[in-house]
Amino acid sequence: MRYLDKTAIENISIGAAFLGTGGGGDPYIGKLMAISAIEQNGPVRLYSVDEIADEDFFIPTAMMGAPSVSSEKFPNGSEFVKVFQKLSRYLGKDNIAGTYPMEAGGVNSMIPIVVAAQLGLPLVDCDGMGRAFPELQMVTFNLDGVPATPMAITDEKGNIGIFETIDNKWTERLARAVTVEMGASALVSLYPTTGAQMKTSGVHGIVTLSEQIGEIIASKNRDAKDKLEELLQLVSGYELFQGKIVDVIRETKGGFNLGRMNLEGIEGHKGGNMDVHFQNENLVAEKDGRVVAMTPDLICLVDFETLSPITTESLKYGKRVRVIGLPAHEKWRTAKGIETAGPKYFGYDYEYVPLEKLVNKAVTDHV
Amino acid sequence: MRYLDKTAIENISIGAAFLGTGGGGDPYIGKLMAISAIEQNGPVRLYSVDEIADEDFFIPTAMMGAPSVSSEKFPNGSEFVKVFQKLSRYLGKDNIAGTYPMEAGGVNSMIPIVVAAQLGLPLVDCDGMGRAFPELQMVTFNLDGVPATPMAITDEKGNIGIFETIDNKWTERLARAVTVEMGASALVSLYPTTGAQMKTSGVHGIVTLSEQIGEIIASKNRDAKDKLEELLQLVSGYELFQGKIVDVIRETKGGFNLGRMNLEGIEGHKGGNMDVHFQNENLVAEKDGRVVAMTPDLICLVDFETLSPITTESLKYGKRVRVIGLPAHEKWRTAKGIETAGPKYFGYDYEYVPLEKLVNKAVTDHV
Repeated sequence: MRYLDKTAIENISIGAAFLGTGGGGDPYIGKLMAISAIEQNGPVRLYSVDEIADEDFFIPTAMMGAPSVSSEKFPNGSEFVKVFQKLSRYLGKDNIAGTYPMEAGGVNSMIPIVVAAQLGLPLVDCDGMGRAFPELQMVTFNLDGVPATPMAITDEKGNIGIFETIDNKWTERLARAVTVEMGASALVSLYPTTGAQMKTSGVHGIVTLSEQIGEIIASKNRDAKDKLEELLQLVSGYELFQGKIVDVIRETKGGFNLGRMNLEGIEGHKGGNMDVHFQNENLVAEKDGRVVAMTPDLICLVDFETLSPITTESLKYGKRVRVIGLPAHEKWRTAKGIETAGPKYFGYDYEYVPLEKLVNKAVTDHV
Repeated sequence: MRYLDKTAIENISIGAAFLGTGGGGDPYIGKLMAISAIEQNGPVRLYSVDEIADEDFFIPTAMMGAPSVSSEKFPNGSEFVKVFQKLSRYLGKDNIAGTYPMEAGGVNSMIPIVVAAQLGLPLVDCDGMGRAFPELQMVTFNLDGVPATPMAITDEKGNIGIFETIDNKWTERLARAVTVEMGASALVSLYPTTGAQMKTSGVHGIVTLSEQIGEIIASKNRDAKDKLEELLQLVSGYELFQGKIVDVIRETKGGFNLGRMNLEGIEGHKGGNMDVHFQNENLVAEKDGRVVAMTPDLICLVDFETLSPITTESLKYGKRVRVIGLPAHEKWRTAKGIETAGPKYFGYDYEYVPLEKLVNKAVTDHV
């Protein structure tokens, strides 16, 4: 057990934006809320999964919908607590042992910290993605057959829904329909899980990893190259491209931010070109027409100089960026993981090839 | 209190199809289920609202969505009981005193009989419309500020939702989105009400009125004119047109059946023409380009010879029909009633004029 203070939250929010792979929502407002919550209630306890009891119950809380909308109509902290409590009451449990992020990437890294601080509960160093993903069934718990429901869904106006579904894709379908009707953004509490389930099916240590990523990116008086090297080593990542944003096409549709951006090579990649496709999160990167990284592996855009993570909502013409690829957690690289969140699920008609192989192939081709 | 036997159910289903004003779903399959349920469990007790206790709780059950779809994927009786019990458990009440139709018109007249028979509960002679209407807030209880939620919604696959909303239009919005996702048809249990609320805000005696309408229409060895006269007297109605269906345009959209039919005058109306617009239910009738009846008043199509009610799903080219107008229940003719279910709500840009006035004006014009 250790305490998360203001500095820890600052760093986690940066690491979470990085792991958000463009989506997951900008953690900025969430960070302010989390800091305010610990200033009022004291620092939050962070437990590793080894420290929690198998039979205890934990409930995550998150935002659902198009990140571009959630940052426009951001709820207040009490609403996160409300959806959490709605689900715990529906479950008939008043002894929920703690909370944790369902999605460590993006704003959903911060919401459980707000809930933990306000309710005096611990946060667990675990999530269900190891990154951000756009749909509710894209969760490692789902891969192991843990039900997403009962779930609670609320909006900032005070409407409340509860679902119990026959499978987790139906959870996604019904909750998405309600999210769209609620204005393309909603608060959800779902995947109520035991400590044992989190030990078996969660992505462990992700809050700490986010913090470490954030520490590197936030560190002062170091040049980009030096920081990048340390970052890539920490996450076993690759720099895929250095480019300037020359085109972005996007729309908000069906409760998602959908689109594609085009980058023109700079520095080491002059003359080259990269397309990045996204549905909330970056899903596929094509370099000079050839796929170099694909979901469920992570495709992260960072500022060329500062390495600050860039969300799809803040893509700007002319911005100079680095594109970084990270291997997904091993749970996503199983047959079930690829079926659930691989390229074919998102409508790209090719087989999943791990990032490392694609990168090495590209290197070989160059020789 | 009296018992509803098989003959009563047969007649209620005919009267309910009439009051369904084209929508509300064909009660045919519902009737078979209701008869089967009383054959297995004995006749259902029907209480008048005067016979129920003010402090007792009652829960209606209904189908929601496009009637054309509900008749294709009709649920079995246990599913109606399930949604009823889901809501009563959510309310924390295991002593629900009875059930009643939220909508007396169409298939939703039969569903509460199935629930009543299966659970051994009484049915109350009351509904929340006095007819059929397409949306959840178009209920007399809503006019008096009774909340539609908590509500339960289920599908035939086993998915379950519960809503608590800030107002009854939000209930309609969220439940409609889920209904569409569930395949344009769902089972709902909503407007949990006390006996006192039903006395104040319900439409009383509607089950008995349906039965009486059904008795007239089903009566043998009488000519159409004679039966029609008795029917019009019972419901204070008017025969608006005698015609042949020459055109029907319809589509299933947003969980509704939408469309328009055109009738060519026959018999007493030769040379004339009528357009009837519908959204599940018939909403506006225009005779020779002039409105002669409009929602919330009832526009009912019946077979020219037998007076059997005709639903919008069964409209057939060449069919000879009579169009009958009925004044809506007085609760619908208040300012709140007209705002909730009058022509403007449905996008027709004119003021509501009561049926009697429109009919008398037409008569005057002819002189």
